[in-house]
Amino acid sequence: MDELLPEPEPLKTLIDALRRLPGVGVRSARRMAYHLLQHDLSGADQLSRALANAVQGLRHCARCNGFSEEEICATCANPKRDPSVLCVVETPADQNMIESSHGYRGLYYVLMGRLAPLEGIGPNELQFDRVIGRATDGQVQEVILATNFTAEGETTAHYLSELLQSQGLKVTRLARGVPAGSELEYVDAGTIAWALMERRST
Amino acid sequence: MDELLPEPEPLKTLIDALRRLPGVGVRSARRMAYHLLQHDLSGADQLSRALANAVQGLRHCARCNGFSEEEICATCANPKRDPSVLCVVETPADQNMIESSHGYRGLYYVLMGRLAPLEGIGPNELQFDRVIGRATDGQVQEVILATNFTAEGETTAHYLSELLQSQGLKVTRLARGVPAGSELEYVDAGTIAWALMERRST
Repeated sequence: MDELLPEPEPLKTLIDALRRLPGVGVRSARRMAYHLLQHDLSGADQLSRALANAVQGLRHCARCNGFSEEEICATCANPKRDPSVLCVVETPADQNMIESSHGYRGLYYVLMGRLAPLEGIGPNELQFDRVIGRATDGQVQEVILATNFTAEGETTAHYLSELLQSQGLKVTRLARGVPAGSELEYVDAGTIAWALMERRST
Repeated sequence: MDELLPEPEPLKTLIDALRRLPGVGVRSARRMAYHLLQHDLSGADQLSRALANAVQGLRHCARCNGFSEEEICATCANPKRDPSVLCVVETPADQNMIESSHGYRGLYYVLMGRLAPLEGIGPNELQFDRVIGRATDGQVQEVILATNFTAEGETTAHYLSELLQSQGLKVTRLARGVPAGSELEYVDAGTIAWALMERRST
């Protein structure tokens, strides 16, 4: 349904721009554009400015590589956090999930991706030298690898583990097992196998 | 998972702004923001500008009420279209779908909505006086009501039909029936009932 009616240029440009959002195809982009223009002009305006401000105002924290307005982000600058533990995550979203568990008081390093050779993302692209530099600051005693439990996340963890261990650091990985609150009947066999293998005495 | 890590202000603002898009919740908004900031800064920039341009550059066509850069849109200004037939649709997306059928060469009127009393959208909000004004320009002979076949779309069509017929205009509605290419077994009973009632001789 592209290019049927002669759409005004600004509308076409807006639809194309919205399509660059992840998970947004041409139909959703069109619906979003119509919605903003018809029902939420102030929302369109607000989004336009928020994008411009974020592009200009955000950079990567020099310590954890997460998004930050300052050179060092608020989390890294927080003196109440334990500087002897460093948790390595793929994305800021993962970092948020770990934070929401209220089970961690150490610091973070955000890879902003994972090893994906097929997409051309290797150790250089992810700046593994920065991870090593951060982990060998003399304060960090233990590195917790909290990359995803996907093929790519596991590869990333494995690779980082070897690099970090060769620096004499203690390296751990999040435990695999049955999710809290789940019924065994509905848990996949692979997870059950892991939970059996990594069973612990009570 | 809100408000956990102290997120930088521009990031928070961007996530809030993205949530105003239809169908986008907090998780998608966060994913979109991270994606743009990490992998597509030029896309963020482009979207910001496209929004600003669209907000400033677009208005409603004085004849069909669709989006336009000019006072009269390209479709309404096209001398090759038949000015004696006017097709009334709810949205520009519907207009595009009708255009994509290549079965219509007349003109359009875009309501930019449908009657929805519960949302406070009545004949005044939809400017039905403008629809009547447009249909009684002396050139229009027939008005095709192509609102959706939903409860609200049907109500809108019914209401408009009475108004337009009282002006002495010929008013028609898109045919109801079995969709092209579908197997009867999988068509809902209501559609079959309509198709039977509106059966035609071959």
